[in-house]
Amino acid sequence: MLFLKSKDNINIKNAVKLKKSAKYRRETGYFTAEGVRLCMDALYSNAVIDTFFVTENALKKYSCEYNKLSEYADKTFVVSPSLFLSISDTDTPQGFLCIIKVLDKTSQFDTIKNSDKFLALDNLQDPNNLGTILRTAEAFNISGVILSKDCCDIYSPKVVRGSMGAIFRLPFLICDTLSDFLTNNPRLTSYAAVVSPDADKVTDIDFISPCVVAVGNEGNGLKSDTIEKCSNCVTIPMKGRAESLNASIAASILIWEMMK
Amino acid sequence: MLFLKSKDNINIKNAVKLKKSAKYRRETGYFTAEGVRLCMDALYSNAVIDTFFVTENALKKYSCEYNKLSEYADKTFVVSPSLFLSISDTDTPQGFLCIIKVLDKTSQFDTIKNSDKFLALDNLQDPNNLGTILRTAEAFNISGVILSKDCCDIYSPKVVRGSMGAIFRLPFLICDTLSDFLTNNPRLTSYAAVVSPDADKVTDIDFISPCVVAVGNEGNGLKSDTIEKCSNCVTIPMKGRAESLNASIAASILIWEMMK
Repeated sequence: MLFLKSKDNINIKNAVKLKKSAKYRRETGYFTAEGVRLCMDALYSNAVIDTFFVTENALKKYSCEYNKLSEYADKTFVVSPSLFLSISDTDTPQGFLCIIKVLDKTSQFDTIKNSDKFLALDNLQDPNNLGTILRTAEAFNISGVILSKDCCDIYSPKVVRGSMGAIFRLPFLICDTLSDFLTNNPRLTSYAAVVSPDADKVTDIDFISPCVVAVGNEGNGLKSDTIEKCSNCVTIPMKGRAESLNASIAASILIWEMMK
Repeated sequence: MLFLKSKDNINIKNAVKLKKSAKYRRETGYFTAEGVRLCMDALYSNAVIDTFFVTENALKKYSCEYNKLSEYADKTFVVSPSLFLSISDTDTPQGFLCIIKVLDKTSQFDTIKNSDKFLALDNLQDPNNLGTILRTAEAFNISGVILSKDCCDIYSPKVVRGSMGAIFRLPFLICDTLSDFLTNNPRLTSYAAVVSPDADKVTDIDFISPCVVAVGNEGNGLKSDTIEKCSNCVTIPMKGRAESLNASIAASILIWEMMK
Protein backbone atom coordinates (compact mmCIF):
# COMPACT_ATOMS: atom_id res chain seq x y z
CA MET A 1 0.00 0.00 0.00
CA LEU A 2 1.51 3.27 -1.15
CA PHE A 3 0.33 6.81 -0.55
CA LEU A 4 0.34 9.14 -3.54
CA LYS A 5 0.26 12.84 -2.85
CA SER A 6 1.24 14.67 -6.00
CA LYS A 7 -0.83 15.21 -9.09
CA ASP A 8 2.45 15.08 -11.00
CA ASN A 9 2.99 11.45 -10.04
CA ILE A 10 3.30 9.31 -13.16
CA ASN A 11 0.51 6.95 -12.08
CA ILE A 12 -1.91 9.81 -11.55
CA LYS A 13 -0.98 11.40 -14.86
CA ASN A 14 -1.49 8.07 -16.58
CA ALA A 15 -4.96 7.65 -15.05
CA VAL A 16 -5.99 11.17 -16.08
CA LYS A 17 -4.88 10.55 -19.65
CA LEU A 18 -6.68 7.19 -19.77
CA LYS A 19 -9.85 8.89 -18.58
CA LYS A 20 -9.64 11.64 -21.16
CA SER A 21 -8.13 10.24 -24.31
CA ALA A 22 -9.44 7.42 -26.50
CA LYS A 23 -6.21 7.62 -28.48
CA TYR A 24 -4.13 7.10 -25.34
CA ARG A 25 -6.32 4.16 -24.31
CA ARG A 26 -5.79 2.62 -27.74
CA GLU A 27 -2.03 3.20 -27.68
CA THR A 28 -1.47 1.85 -24.17
CA GLY A 29 -4.10 -0.90 -24.20
CA TYR A 30 -5.58 0.14 -20.86
CA PHE A 31 -8.78 1.83 -19.64
CA THR A 32 -10.34 2.89 -16.35
CA ALA A 33 -13.37 1.68 -14.40
CA GLU A 34 -14.68 3.58 -11.42
CA GLY A 35 -16.84 2.80 -8.41
CA VAL A 36 -16.89 -0.15 -6.03
CA ARG A 37 -19.27 -2.21 -8.08
CA LEU A 38 -17.56 -1.75 -11.44
CA CYS A 39 -14.13 -2.48 -9.95
CA MET A 40 -15.50 -5.66 -8.36
CA ASP A 41 -17.16 -6.60 -11.67
CA ALA A 42 -13.71 -6.33 -13.26
CA LEU A 43 -12.24 -8.60 -10.59
CA TYR A 44 -15.05 -11.18 -10.76
CA SER A 45 -14.71 -11.38 -14.53
CA ASN A 46 -10.96 -11.97 -14.25
CA ALA A 47 -9.97 -8.77 -16.01
CA VAL A 48 -6.32 -7.81 -15.64
CA ILE A 49 -6.21 -4.98 -13.10
CA ASP A 50 -2.97 -3.06 -13.34
CA THR A 51 -3.57 -0.31 -10.80
CA PHE A 52 -6.10 0.23 -8.03
CA PHE A 53 -6.58 3.75 -6.66
CA VAL A 54 -8.52 4.16 -3.42
CA THR A 55 -9.20 6.95 -0.94
CA GLU A 56 -8.70 6.40 2.79
CA ASN A 57 -12.40 6.85 3.46
CA ALA A 58 -13.34 4.33 0.81
CA LEU A 59 -10.88 1.68 2.00
CA LYS A 60 -12.46 1.85 5.46
CA LYS A 61 -16.04 1.98 4.22
CA TYR A 62 -15.59 -0.87 1.75
CA SER A 63 -12.88 -2.79 3.58
CA CYS A 64 -13.92 -6.21 2.27
CA GLU A 65 -13.84 -5.05 -1.36
CA TYR A 66 -10.63 -3.13 -0.68
CA ASN A 67 -8.91 -6.25 0.62
CA LYS A 68 -9.88 -8.30 -2.40
CA LEU A 69 -8.96 -5.64 -4.94
CA SER A 70 -5.65 -4.66 -3.36
CA GLU A 71 -4.63 -8.32 -3.30
CA TYR A 72 -5.73 -8.84 -6.90
CA ALA A 73 -4.36 -5.66 -8.51
CA ASP A 74 -0.71 -5.37 -9.50
CA LYS A 75 -0.37 -2.00 -7.75
CA THR A 76 -2.48 -0.26 -5.13
CA PHE A 77 -2.26 3.43 -4.30
CA VAL A 78 -4.05 5.35 -1.58
CA VAL A 79 -4.80 8.89 -2.68
CA SER A 80 -6.34 11.99 -1.12
CA PRO A 81 -9.95 12.94 -2.02
CA SER A 82 -8.76 15.93 -4.09
CA LEU A 83 -6.26 13.80 -6.00
CA PHE A 84 -8.97 11.21 -6.56
CA LEU A 85 -11.24 13.88 -8.03
CA SER A 86 -8.61 14.56 -10.69
CA ILE A 87 -8.67 10.97 -11.94
CA SER A 88 -12.41 10.50 -11.44
CA ASP A 89 -15.03 11.01 -14.12
CA THR A 90 -17.85 11.74 -11.65
CA ASP A 91 -18.68 14.69 -9.42
CA THR A 92 -19.16 12.61 -6.28
CA PRO A 93 -16.70 9.72 -6.58
CA GLN A 94 -16.93 6.64 -4.38
CA GLY A 95 -13.15 6.47 -4.07
CA PHE A 96 -12.47 3.27 -6.06
CA LEU A 97 -10.85 3.37 -9.50
CA CYS A 98 -8.99 0.69 -11.43
CA ILE A 99 -6.76 0.77 -14.48
CA ILE A 100 -7.61 -2.34 -16.46
CA LYS A 101 -6.10 -4.06 -19.49
CA VAL A 102 -8.38 -3.91 -22.54
CA LEU A 103 -10.59 -6.97 -22.70
CA ASP A 104 -10.44 -9.90 -25.06
CA LYS A 105 -14.05 -10.99 -25.49
CA THR A 106 -13.92 -12.24 -29.05
CA SER A 107 -13.81 -16.03 -28.60
CA GLN A 108 -17.64 -16.20 -28.80
CA PHE A 109 -17.33 -15.10 -32.41
CA ASP A 110 -14.81 -17.77 -33.46
CA THR A 111 -17.47 -20.42 -33.92
CA ILE A 112 -21.04 -19.30 -34.52
CA LYS A 113 -23.55 -21.50 -32.68
CA ASN A 114 -27.00 -22.27 -34.08
CA SER A 115 -28.68 -20.45 -31.21
CA ASP A 116 -26.56 -17.30 -31.46
CA LYS A 117 -28.30 -13.95 -31.72
CA PHE A 118 -26.04 -10.95 -32.11
CA LEU A 119 -26.43 -7.19 -32.19
CA ALA A 120 -24.24 -5.14 -34.54
CA LEU A 121 -23.66 -1.39 -34.21
CA ASP A 122 -22.66 0.73 -37.17
CA ASN A 123 -20.93 4.05 -36.37
CA LEU A 124 -22.82 4.57 -33.12
CA GLN A 125 -21.44 7.82 -31.65
CA ASP A 126 -22.96 8.55 -28.25
CA PRO A 127 -21.18 6.86 -25.30
CA ASN A 128 -24.36 7.03 -23.21
CA ASN A 129 -26.23 5.14 -25.93
CA LEU A 130 -23.48 2.54 -26.23
CA GLY A 131 -23.31 1.96 -22.47
CA THR A 132 -27.08 1.59 -22.22
CA ILE A 133 -27.18 -0.78 -25.20
CA LEU A 134 -24.51 -3.04 -23.67
CA ARG A 135 -26.48 -3.11 -20.43
CA THR A 136 -29.69 -4.04 -22.25
CA ALA A 137 -27.90 -6.61 -24.42
CA GLU A 138 -26.66 -8.37 -21.31
CA ALA A 139 -30.05 -8.17 -19.57
CA PHE A 140 -31.69 -10.03 -22.43
CA ASN A 141 -28.81 -12.44 -22.97
CA ILE A 142 -27.66 -11.37 -26.42
CA SER A 143 -24.82 -13.68 -27.55
CA GLY A 144 -22.54 -10.76 -28.33
CA VAL A 145 -22.21 -7.29 -29.80
CA ILE A 146 -20.27 -6.40 -32.94
CA LEU A 147 -19.08 -2.81 -33.32
CA SER A 148 -17.74 -1.16 -36.46
CA LYS A 149 -14.43 0.47 -35.59
CA ASP A 150 -15.86 3.94 -36.20
CA CYS A 151 -18.22 3.57 -33.23
CA CYS A 152 -17.37 5.66 -30.17
CA ASP A 153 -14.72 4.09 -27.93
CA ILE A 154 -16.19 1.21 -25.94
CA TYR A 155 -13.58 1.85 -23.23
CA SER A 156 -14.60 5.46 -22.54
CA PRO A 157 -15.56 6.03 -18.88
CA LYS A 158 -19.15 6.88 -19.85
CA VAL A 159 -19.60 3.63 -21.75
CA VAL A 160 -18.03 1.53 -19.00
CA ARG A 161 -20.22 3.19 -16.34
CA GLY A 162 -23.40 3.16 -18.44
CA SER A 163 -22.93 -0.54 -19.19
CA MET A 164 -23.22 -1.27 -15.44
CA GLY A 165 -20.40 -3.78 -15.81
CA ALA A 166 -21.85 -5.53 -18.87
CA ILE A 167 -18.64 -4.62 -20.72
CA PHE A 168 -16.79 -7.14 -18.51
CA ARG A 169 -19.18 -10.00 -19.21
CA LEU A 170 -20.65 -9.49 -22.66
CA PRO A 171 -18.75 -10.87 -25.67
CA PHE A 172 -17.94 -8.11 -28.10
CA LEU A 173 -15.96 -7.74 -31.29
CA ILE A 174 -14.68 -4.61 -32.97
CA CYS A 175 -14.43 -5.00 -36.75
CA ASP A 176 -13.39 -2.73 -39.60
CA THR A 177 -16.84 -2.56 -41.15
CA LEU A 178 -20.08 -4.45 -40.55
CA SER A 179 -20.17 -5.18 -44.23
CA ASP A 180 -16.86 -7.10 -43.88
CA PHE A 181 -18.17 -8.89 -40.82
CA LEU A 182 -21.31 -10.01 -42.66
CA THR A 183 -19.27 -11.16 -45.65
CA ASN A 184 -17.07 -13.24 -43.36
CA ASN A 185 -20.04 -14.75 -41.53
CA PRO A 186 -22.43 -15.91 -44.24
CA ARG A 187 -24.18 -18.32 -41.84
CA LEU A 188 -25.79 -15.41 -40.01
CA THR A 189 -29.24 -14.28 -41.09
CA SER A 190 -28.90 -10.51 -41.01
CA TYR A 191 -31.50 -7.84 -40.32
CA ALA A 192 -30.85 -4.17 -41.07
CA ALA A 193 -32.82 -1.86 -38.77
CA VAL A 194 -34.20 0.97 -40.87
CA VAL A 195 -36.90 3.64 -40.63
CA SER A 196 -39.01 2.71 -43.62
CA PRO A 197 -42.63 1.75 -44.27
CA ASP A 198 -41.40 -0.85 -46.80
CA ALA A 199 -39.33 -2.86 -44.34
CA ASP A 200 -40.73 -5.83 -42.42
CA LYS A 201 -42.28 -4.85 -39.10
CA VAL A 202 -40.34 -6.19 -36.14
CA THR A 203 -43.65 -7.55 -34.79
CA ASP A 204 -44.08 -9.68 -37.93
CA ILE A 205 -40.60 -11.20 -37.92
CA ASP A 206 -39.53 -14.54 -36.51
CA PHE A 207 -35.84 -13.99 -36.00
CA ILE A 208 -34.07 -17.02 -37.44
CA SER A 209 -30.94 -17.84 -35.49
CA PRO A 210 -28.06 -17.71 -35.88
CA CYS A 211 -28.73 -14.10 -36.69
CA VAL A 212 -27.60 -10.53 -36.26
CA VAL A 213 -29.57 -7.28 -36.10
CA ALA A 214 -27.66 -4.21 -37.26
CA VAL A 215 -28.42 -0.75 -35.81
CA GLY A 216 -26.91 2.44 -37.16
CA ASN A 217 -25.74 5.91 -36.29
CA GLU A 218 -27.91 8.28 -34.22
CA GLY A 219 -28.46 10.75 -37.03
CA ASN A 220 -27.84 8.82 -40.22
CA GLY A 221 -28.83 5.25 -39.47
CA LEU A 222 -26.99 2.35 -41.10
CA LYS A 223 -24.41 2.83 -43.84
CA SER A 224 -25.80 1.94 -47.24
CA ASP A 225 -23.28 -0.86 -47.80
CA THR A 226 -24.29 -2.42 -44.48
CA ILE A 227 -27.94 -2.37 -45.54
CA GLU A 228 -27.02 -3.90 -48.91
CA LYS A 229 -25.17 -6.76 -47.21
CA CYS A 230 -28.09 -7.59 -44.91
CA SER A 231 -30.53 -10.27 -46.01
CA ASN A 232 -33.55 -8.50 -44.46
CA CYS A 233 -34.73 -5.06 -43.44
CA VAL A 234 -36.63 -4.58 -40.20
CA THR A 235 -38.45 -1.55 -38.86
CA ILE A 236 -40.10 -0.54 -35.60
CA PRO A 237 -43.58 0.72 -36.51
CA MET A 238 -44.35 4.11 -34.96
CA LYS A 239 -47.73 5.68 -34.56
CA GLY A 240 -47.03 9.12 -33.18
CA ARG A 241 -45.63 12.28 -34.67
CA ALA A 242 -42.03 11.54 -33.73
CA GLU A 243 -39.83 10.73 -36.69
CA SER A 244 -37.48 8.39 -34.94
CA LEU A 245 -36.46 6.84 -31.67
CA ASN A 246 -33.32 7.41 -29.66
CA ALA A 247 -30.75 4.86 -30.91
CA SER A 248 -30.50 3.09 -27.55
CA ILE A 249 -34.30 2.76 -27.39
CA ALA A 250 -34.51 1.43 -30.95
CA ALA A 251 -31.72 -1.07 -30.25
CA SER A 252 -33.36 -2.15 -27.00
CA ILE A 253 -36.77 -2.77 -28.56
CA LEU A 254 -35.08 -4.81 -31.31
CA ILE A 255 -33.11 -6.79 -28.72
CA TRP A 256 -36.29 -7.32 -26.72
CA GLU A 257 -38.24 -8.56 -29.73
CA MET A 258 -35.38 -10.76 -30.92
CA MET A 259 -34.78 -12.36 -27.50
CA LYS A 260 -38.19 -12.66 -25.87
CA MET B 1 -34.85 43.57 -34.32
CA LEU B 2 -32.52 44.63 -31.54
CA PHE B 3 -28.85 43.92 -31.09
CA LEU B 4 -27.71 42.88 -27.65
CA LYS B 5 -24.03 43.26 -26.86
CA SER B 6 -23.59 42.99 -23.10
CA LYS B 7 -23.75 39.90 -20.98
CA ASP B 8 -25.11 42.18 -18.26
CA ASN B 9 -28.24 42.89 -20.27
CA ILE B 10 -31.30 41.86 -18.30
CA ASN B 11 -32.63 39.60 -21.09
CA ILE B 12 -29.35 37.70 -21.29
CA LYS B 13 -29.16 37.34 -17.52
CA ASN B 14 -32.71 36.05 -17.49
CA ALA B 15 -31.94 33.45 -20.17
CA VAL B 16 -28.84 32.25 -18.32
CA LYS B 17 -30.82 31.83 -15.10
CA LEU B 18 -33.63 29.99 -16.90
CA LYS B 19 -31.05 27.62 -18.35
CA LYS B 20 -29.41 26.92 -15.03
CA SER B 21 -32.06 27.01 -12.34
CA ALA B 22 -35.15 24.81 -11.99
CA LYS B 23 -36.24 27.03 -9.10
CA TYR B 24 -36.05 30.15 -11.27
CA ARG B 25 -38.01 28.40 -14.02
CA ARG B 26 -40.69 27.49 -11.49
CA GLU B 27 -40.83 30.99 -10.03
CA THR B 28 -41.02 32.81 -13.36
CA GLY B 29 -43.05 30.25 -15.30
CA TYR B 30 -40.69 30.24 -18.29
CA PHE B 31 -38.13 27.86 -19.79
CA THR B 32 -35.76 27.76 -22.73
CA ALA B 33 -35.65 25.69 -25.91
CA GLU B 34 -32.66 25.72 -28.18
CA GLY B 35 -31.95 24.87 -31.81
CA VAL B 36 -33.85 25.63 -34.99
CA ARG B 37 -35.99 22.55 -34.85
CA LEU B 38 -37.04 22.81 -31.21
CA CYS B 39 -37.85 26.52 -31.58
CA MET B 40 -39.99 25.74 -34.64
CA ASP B 41 -41.66 22.88 -32.73
CA ALA B 42 -42.61 25.44 -30.07
CA LEU B 43 -44.06 27.75 -32.71
CA TYR B 44 -45.97 24.98 -34.52
CA SER B 45 -47.51 23.79 -31.25
CA ASN B 46 -48.66 27.33 -30.42
CA ALA B 47 -46.49 27.70 -27.34
CA VAL B 48 -46.15 31.25 -26.04
CA ILE B 49 -42.71 32.47 -27.09
CA ASP B 50 -41.62 35.45 -25.03
CA THR B 51 -38.12 36.01 -26.38
CA PHE B 52 -36.22 34.78 -29.42
CA PHE B 53 -32.42 35.04 -29.42
CA VAL B 54 -30.60 34.55 -32.70
CA THR B 55 -27.05 35.01 -33.99
CA GLU B 56 -26.39 36.92 -37.22
CA ASN B 57 -25.06 33.79 -38.90
CA ALA B 58 -28.10 31.78 -37.92
CA LEU B 59 -30.60 34.38 -39.10
CA LYS B 60 -28.99 34.32 -42.55
CA LYS B 61 -28.60 30.54 -42.66
CA TYR B 62 -32.15 29.84 -41.49
CA SER B 63 -33.83 32.97 -42.86
CA CYS B 64 -37.21 31.34 -43.40
CA GLU B 65 -37.39 30.05 -39.82
CA TYR B 66 -35.98 33.34 -38.56
CA ASN B 67 -38.76 35.30 -40.28
CA LYS B 68 -41.48 33.12 -38.81
CA LEU B 69 -40.06 33.11 -35.29
CA SER B 70 -39.25 36.81 -35.13
CA GLU B 71 -42.80 37.59 -36.22
CA TYR B 72 -44.27 35.14 -33.72
CA ALA B 73 -42.14 35.91 -30.65
CA ASP B 74 -42.91 38.92 -28.43
CA LYS B 75 -39.27 40.07 -28.53
CA THR B 76 -36.38 39.21 -30.84
CA PHE B 77 -32.75 39.92 -30.07
CA VAL B 78 -29.73 39.43 -32.28
CA VAL B 79 -26.67 38.48 -30.24
CA SER B 80 -23.01 37.82 -30.93
CA PRO B 81 -21.75 34.21 -31.05
CA SER B 82 -19.91 34.63 -27.74
CA LEU B 83 -22.99 36.07 -26.04
CA PHE B 84 -25.07 33.25 -27.50
CA LEU B 85 -22.66 30.71 -25.99
CA SER B 86 -23.41 32.10 -22.54
CA ILE B 87 -27.13 31.38 -22.84
CA SER B 88 -26.70 28.13 -24.75
CA ASP B 89 -26.63 24.68 -23.17
CA THR B 90 -24.60 23.09 -25.98
CA ASP B 91 -20.97 23.32 -27.07
CA THR B 92 -21.75 24.03 -30.71
CA PRO B 93 -24.97 26.04 -30.70
CA GLN B 94 -27.04 26.55 -33.84
CA GLY B 95 -27.81 30.14 -32.86
CA PHE B 96 -31.55 29.85 -32.15
CA LEU B 97 -32.92 29.98 -28.59
CA CYS B 98 -36.39 30.83 -27.32
CA ILE B 99 -37.76 31.69 -23.91
CA ILE B 100 -41.13 29.99 -23.69
CA LYS B 101 -44.02 30.12 -21.23
CA VAL B 102 -44.48 26.84 -19.35
CA LEU B 103 -46.94 24.62 -21.15
CA ASP B 104 -50.46 23.71 -20.19
CA LYS B 105 -50.94 20.17 -21.46
CA THR B 106 -53.33 18.85 -18.85
CA SER B 107 -56.69 18.95 -20.67
CA GLN B 108 -56.19 15.35 -21.86
CA PHE B 109 -56.47 14.29 -18.24
CA ASP B 110 -59.75 16.08 -17.50
CA THR B 111 -61.84 13.34 -19.06
CA ILE B 112 -60.35 9.88 -19.32
CA LYS B 113 -61.30 8.18 -22.59
CA ASN B 114 -61.84 4.45 -22.86
CA SER B 115 -58.90 4.09 -25.20
CA ASP B 116 -56.45 6.08 -23.07
CA LYS B 117 -53.14 4.53 -22.16
CA PHE B 118 -50.90 6.58 -19.90
CA LEU B 119 -47.40 6.36 -18.52
CA ALA B 120 -46.69 7.55 -14.98
CA LEU B 121 -43.23 8.37 -13.63
CA ASP B 122 -42.44 8.25 -9.94
CA ASN B 123 -39.45 10.29 -8.77
CA LEU B 124 -37.51 9.83 -12.02
CA GLN B 125 -34.30 11.81 -11.58
CA ASP B 126 -32.19 11.75 -14.73
CA PRO B 127 -33.08 14.47 -17.29
CA ASN B 128 -31.64 12.35 -20.10
CA ASN B 129 -33.95 9.50 -19.14
CA LEU B 130 -36.96 11.79 -18.93
CA GLY B 131 -36.26 13.39 -22.32
CA THR B 132 -35.83 9.99 -23.96
CA ILE B 133 -39.00 8.63 -22.34
CA LEU B 134 -41.05 11.60 -23.60
CA ARG B 135 -39.64 11.03 -27.10
CA THR B 136 -40.55 7.33 -26.98
CA ALA B 137 -43.98 8.01 -25.48
CA GLU B 138 -44.78 10.30 -28.39
CA ALA B 139 -43.39 7.86 -30.97
CA PHE B 140 -45.77 5.15 -29.79
CA ASN B 141 -48.71 7.50 -29.27
CA ILE B 142 -49.09 7.28 -25.49
CA SER B 143 -52.14 9.35 -24.44
CA GLY B 144 -50.12 11.27 -21.88
CA VAL B 145 -47.46 11.16 -19.18
CA ILE B 146 -48.06 11.76 -15.47
CA LEU B 147 -45.10 12.87 -13.37
CA SER B 148 -44.87 12.96 -9.59
CA LYS B 149 -43.70 16.43 -8.60
CA ASP B 150 -40.42 15.03 -7.21
CA CYS B 151 -39.33 13.97 -10.73
CA CYS B 152 -36.52 16.03 -12.26
CA ASP B 153 -37.71 19.27 -13.87
CA ILE B 154 -39.43 18.56 -17.18
CA TYR B 155 -38.41 22.05 -18.35
CA SER B 156 -34.66 21.53 -17.93
CA PRO B 157 -32.73 22.10 -21.17
CA LYS B 158 -31.60 18.46 -21.25
CA VAL B 159 -35.16 17.15 -21.03
CA VAL B 160 -36.47 19.58 -23.64
CA ARG B 161 -33.65 18.67 -26.03
CA GLY B 162 -33.78 14.93 -25.34
CA SER B 163 -37.53 14.90 -25.96
CA MET B 164 -36.88 16.05 -29.55
CA GLY B 165 -39.85 18.40 -29.22
CA ALA B 166 -42.23 15.80 -27.77
CA ILE B 167 -42.61 18.08 -24.73
CA PHE B 168 -44.53 20.53 -26.94
CA ARG B 169 -46.96 17.94 -28.25
CA LEU B 170 -47.39 15.26 -25.61
CA PRO B 171 -50.03 15.78 -22.91
CA PHE B 172 -48.43 15.70 -19.46
CA LEU B 173 -49.53 16.32 -15.93
CA ILE B 174 -47.45 16.98 -12.83
CA CYS B 175 -49.14 15.73 -9.66
CA ASP B 176 -48.18 15.70 -5.99
CA THR B 177 -47.92 11.92 -5.77
CA LEU B 178 -48.84 9.09 -8.11
CA SER B 179 -50.75 7.54 -5.27
CA ASP B 180 -53.01 10.65 -5.17
CA PHE B 181 -53.39 10.55 -8.93
CA LEU B 182 -54.47 6.90 -8.84
CA THR B 183 -56.92 7.55 -6.03
CA ASN B 184 -58.47 10.39 -8.03
CA ASN B 185 -58.69 8.31 -11.21
CA PRO B 186 -60.23 4.99 -10.15
CA ARG B 187 -61.32 4.22 -13.73
CA LEU B 188 -57.73 3.58 -14.73
CA THR B 189 -56.41 0.03 -14.56
CA SER B 190 -52.97 0.54 -13.05
CA TYR B 191 -49.80 -1.47 -13.52
CA ALA B 192 -46.79 -1.00 -11.25
CA ALA B 193 -43.51 -1.83 -13.02
CA VAL B 194 -41.35 -3.80 -10.62
CA VAL B 195 -38.32 -6.07 -10.73
CA SER B 196 -39.79 -9.22 -9.22
CA PRO B 197 -40.22 -12.84 -10.26
CA ASP B 198 -43.71 -12.79 -8.65
CA ALA B 199 -45.11 -10.02 -10.84
CA ASP B 200 -46.96 -10.71 -14.09
CA LYS B 201 -44.65 -10.82 -17.10
CA VAL B 202 -45.25 -7.95 -19.51
CA THR B 203 -45.44 -10.54 -22.29
CA ASP B 204 -48.39 -12.24 -20.55
CA ILE B 205 -50.42 -9.09 -19.97
CA ASP B 206 -53.22 -7.70 -22.10
CA PHE B 207 -53.22 -4.09 -21.07
CA ILE B 208 -56.84 -3.14 -20.38
CA SER B 209 -57.52 0.45 -21.30
CA PRO B 210 -58.05 2.97 -19.94
CA CYS B 211 -54.85 2.20 -18.09
CA VAL B 212 -51.63 3.56 -16.71
CA VAL B 213 -48.22 1.96 -16.27
CA ALA B 214 -46.11 3.39 -13.45
CA VAL B 215 -42.30 3.40 -13.65
CA GLY B 216 -40.09 4.42 -10.75
CA ASN B 217 -36.81 5.98 -9.77
CA GLU B 218 -33.52 4.89 -11.40
CA GLY B 219 -32.09 3.39 -8.22
CA ASN B 220 -35.06 2.63 -6.01
CA GLY B 221 -37.93 1.87 -8.34
CA LEU B 222 -41.48 2.82 -7.42
CA LYS B 223 -42.44 4.14 -4.00
CA SER B 224 -44.16 1.50 -1.89
CA ASP B 225 -47.40 3.50 -1.62
CA THR B 226 -47.52 3.79 -5.41
CA ILE B 227 -47.16 0.02 -5.73
CA GLU B 228 -49.88 -0.52 -3.12
CA LYS B 229 -52.28 1.73 -5.02
CA CYS B 230 -51.74 -0.10 -8.32
CA SER B 231 -54.14 -2.88 -9.22
CA ASN B 232 -51.42 -5.01 -10.92
CA CYS B 233 -47.69 -5.53 -10.87
CA VAL B 234 -45.81 -6.01 -14.13
CA THR B 235 -42.22 -7.05 -14.75
CA ILE B 236 -39.91 -7.27 -17.74
CA PRO B 237 -38.42 -10.76 -17.66
CA MET B 238 -34.62 -10.73 -17.94
CA LYS B 239 -32.43 -13.66 -18.82
CA GLY B 240 -28.93 -12.34 -18.45
CA ARG B 241 -26.79 -11.48 -15.48
CA ALA B 242 -27.82 -7.82 -15.36
CA GLU B 243 -30.00 -6.97 -12.38
CA SER B 244 -31.95 -4.22 -13.99
CA LEU B 245 -32.47 -2.08 -17.03
CA ASN B 246 -31.83 1.61 -17.49
CA ALA B 247 -35.07 3.40 -16.50
CA SER B 248 -35.60 4.84 -19.99
CA ILE B 249 -35.17 1.38 -21.53
CA ALA B 250 -37.57 -0.24 -19.06
CA ALA B 251 -40.14 2.50 -19.67
CA SER B 252 -39.72 2.19 -23.43
CA ILE B 253 -40.21 -1.58 -23.48
CA LEU B 254 -43.33 -1.18 -21.33
CA ILE B 255 -44.64 1.56 -23.64
CA TRP B 256 -43.88 -0.64 -26.65
CA GLU B 257 -45.68 -3.65 -25.18
CA MET B 258 -48.64 -1.55 -24.05
CA MET B 259 -49.07 0.24 -27.38
CA LYS B 260 -48.17 -2.29 -30.05
